[in-house]
Amino acid sequence: MNMVDMILKKKEGKALSPEEIRFFARGAADGSVPDYQLAALLMAICWQGMTAEETACLTMEMMHSGSVVDLSAIDGVCVDKHSTGGVGDTTTLVLVPLAAACGAKVAKLSGRGLGHTGGTLDKLESIPGCSISVSQADFIRQVQEIGCAVIGQTQDLCPADKALYALRDVTGTVGSIPLIASSIVSKKLASGAGAIVLDVKTGSGALMQTVEESIELAKAMVEIGAQAGKPILALVTGMDQPLGTHVGNALEVKEAIDILSGRAKGDLLTVSLELGSRMLVACGVAKDVEDGKARMTQALESGAGLKKLREMIEAQGGDGRVCEELAYLPHAAYKISVPALASGYVAKMDTTAIGYCAQGLGAGRREKTDVIDPAVGLVMDVRLGDYIAEGDSLATLYLNKPELAKDAVAKMQQAITITKQQIELPPLIYAAVSQDGVTR
Amino acid sequence: MNMVDMILKKKEGKALSPEEIRFFARGAADGSVPDYQLAALLMAICWQGMTAEETACLTMEMMHSGSVVDLSAIDGVCVDKHSTGGVGDTTTLVLVPLAAACGAKVAKLSGRGLGHTGGTLDKLESIPGCSISVSQADFIRQVQEIGCAVIGQTQDLCPADKALYALRDVTGTVGSIPLIASSIVSKKLASGAGAIVLDVKTGSGALMQTVEESIELAKAMVEIGAQAGKPILALVTGMDQPLGTHVGNALEVKEAIDILSGRAKGDLLTVSLELGSRMLVACGVAKDVEDGKARMTQALESGAGLKKLREMIEAQGGDGRVCEELAYLPHAAYKISVPALASGYVAKMDTTAIGYCAQGLGAGRREKTDVIDPAVGLVMDVRLGDYIAEGDSLATLYLNKPELAKDAVAKMQQAITITKQQIELPPLIYAAVSQDGVTR
Repeated sequence: MNMVDMILKKKEGKALSPEEIRFFARGAADGSVPDYQLAALLMAICWQGMTAEETACLTMEMMHSGSVVDLSAIDGVCVDKHSTGGVGDTTTLVLVPLAAACGAKVAKLSGRGLGHTGGTLDKLESIPGCSISVSQADFIRQVQEIGCAVIGQTQDLCPADKALYALRDVTGTVGSIPLIASSIVSKKLASGAGAIVLDVKTGSGALMQTVEESIELAKAMVEIGAQAGKPILALVTGMDQPLGTHVGNALEVKEAIDILSGRAKGDLLTVSLELGSRMLVACGVAKDVEDGKARMTQALESGAGLKKLREMIEAQGGDGRVCEELAYLPHAAYKISVPALASGYVAKMDTTAIGYCAQGLGAGRREKTDVIDPAVGLVMDVRLGDYIAEGDSLATLYLNKPELAKDAVAKMQQAITITKQQIELPPLIYAAVSQDGVTR
Repeated sequence: MNMVDMILKKKEGKALSPEEIRFFARGAADGSVPDYQLAALLMAICWQGMTAEETACLTMEMMHSGSVVDLSAIDGVCVDKHSTGGVGDTTTLVLVPLAAACGAKVAKLSGRGLGHTGGTLDKLESIPGCSISVSQADFIRQVQEIGCAVIGQTQDLCPADKALYALRDVTGTVGSIPLIASSIVSKKLASGAGAIVLDVKTGSGALMQTVEESIELAKAMVEIGAQAGKPILALVTGMDQPLGTHVGNALEVKEAIDILSGRAKGDLLTVSLELGSRMLVACGVAKDVEDGKARMTQALESGAGLKKLREMIEAQGGDGRVCEELAYLPHAAYKISVPALASGYVAKMDTTAIGYCAQGLGAGRREKTDVIDPAVGLVMDVRLGDYIAEGDSLATLYLNKPELAKDAVAKMQQAITITKQQIELPPLIYAAVSQDGVTR
């Protein structure tokens, strides 16, 4: 196999053969293809794209480049959910217990916070005692017994994806729909999922900033599912403002508990129900989305979802009392309001900047080795379209290092645009994508 | 300077700043920018191109990345000629002596054969005793005294270009007009040329296979000259068949001597006069192309050109008697005809295949370490449009290893297409490109 010929083929816009894709994916995993040739090929893929067949082939090659988690000991179809990453986006902690309470099996391998977006593992670890390092056997037993588990990845999954992703990160080749789609789906398939629901975020806080690109990405991932014979459904949802009101680890756990207790509603709940109902459809528990939504709502209103969250936390060694008494969660020492600098309508939010603001307070990592402060973050006091008077609070910062306040207040004021004219509110759900097509 | 930002900028089709171009060119030369980032950037340049300003800036950065030959001790403007590489293309050995006989100063650093194309240094070395390794001082003295010298590169010219070219070669990023143009012109400028005439080959034996691409390349190089304040002129000439009839090192020296002696004419002479007359214009010896052509023709007819070739060969330690007595050149032991397999018109030649056929006989190197046989090669017995009867000779092979004949005969028969219909002959000179525009 000649790498230069392969690069030239892609440069000319031709499709690579399965053998060629296998060669470079394996070469990335075992280091037998030099980085500079992979980098040139990746840029040529950014340029010329990949066909659905090529994308599915790359996905399967990356999936099979390492271990594949065997969930066959669990009864029924294990369903997973993946988000492309958002701010104030803790749908996992809302929908996993609700779906499990409805009878779905959710064996979820989650990630840590990355850049301006939060990570479920960091949120779970803000619960005293809660562990995300669980042996494979205990993980399967927990899902079989209580219906859900959310843990960190232990096995060596998708080494080809790891190598290619690390290279993409330093060669400006992250932004390519077939590369993003194959990277996401390969990891989900390697983690054993039998059905997947994807939440593709779009807007100022998302990887994909335009709706059309987000729909393209969703279609690419659904198509991989079609090629691989696995049900994959996707929603394209808005990330023009933080999804929930809380941004930060313990703060987001608190918001999830508030929602599961019936004390809070809003966009986070709406999106969680939309995604969760599709999870029930994908794994065969519900017959359609309406049925799924009814079951999820029933689990919410009966308190079965909250009970399931407590079971999951306790199964993973955590203090389940947080579900009834929020005081058991870590609390920040200081609360500081971010005053609006003008009166008017909240017209726009730079959601990425808000995410980085929470990161700056200690809720996320700048470097991989940074230690997170689970208590800190911020709570939004306004949503898009709200009218606010000068001096009223845009958001409340929760922090342990008061010296960080001044800079964070200024950044939040800059991230939120106030105008005299009322705006048209952006949609929350832009599109649903399945093998039947795109519904807007 | 952040390489990822730079790659993304080019990926999005934006122009790089001079500081950015300097950073990556120096980083290529000193190894401070990793190959994988350079590879991604090079592919993004293949994709999005470069503006004239970027291309000129890259050229100057590559030129100044190493030594620049100082020819200021030579009176007048030193003029150089560069060909993008052809088969049976020994214009250098025809036009350098003619131009020097007309009063031009030609201080030429030449190259070795590459792939299917021949190299002037290999041809010169086929002359007994002739050296291409001359000290800088002797080189300048020779040009000052007799008007011309053709030697190999001794100093460390353009290390940034060397590093980038080596990387392009293994990453499928050779084919990019701004990268090709800057690579060629940077080396010519670093070798001290004050004025340059470029011969951009087009057709079945050329780097650029279409006329439009060839004209684009010529325009890009002329534009670099405009930006750098150096006169650069270009011709786009046909490479749909070997330019001369002789392919191989001593064989091409013989053809050059035949032409300078007035015994041979043809396309090689025509192109040499066109290029040479522009060299005389570029360095100020002739007032226009017509004047240049008259002077070159006069030098040819008077025998001044042949006399100059002999002076140059002798100045470089070679046996000048070859100019009068071809028997002093090395001769191959065997001559074998390639019979036509059908009667008809010579309609097409795969010139690259003919070049590789000569290489296979020992006239060129497959690996850098291969040793060339100066005597071997082939002489074309037909040109495009000729009528030939079945069994007549298409070409004559000159070889020292008769066991190579069978394969070479078959390859030559395959490389030459014979049809029943007469064809329209392709042009020899497609276009002349100067700062005033393109003349077809």
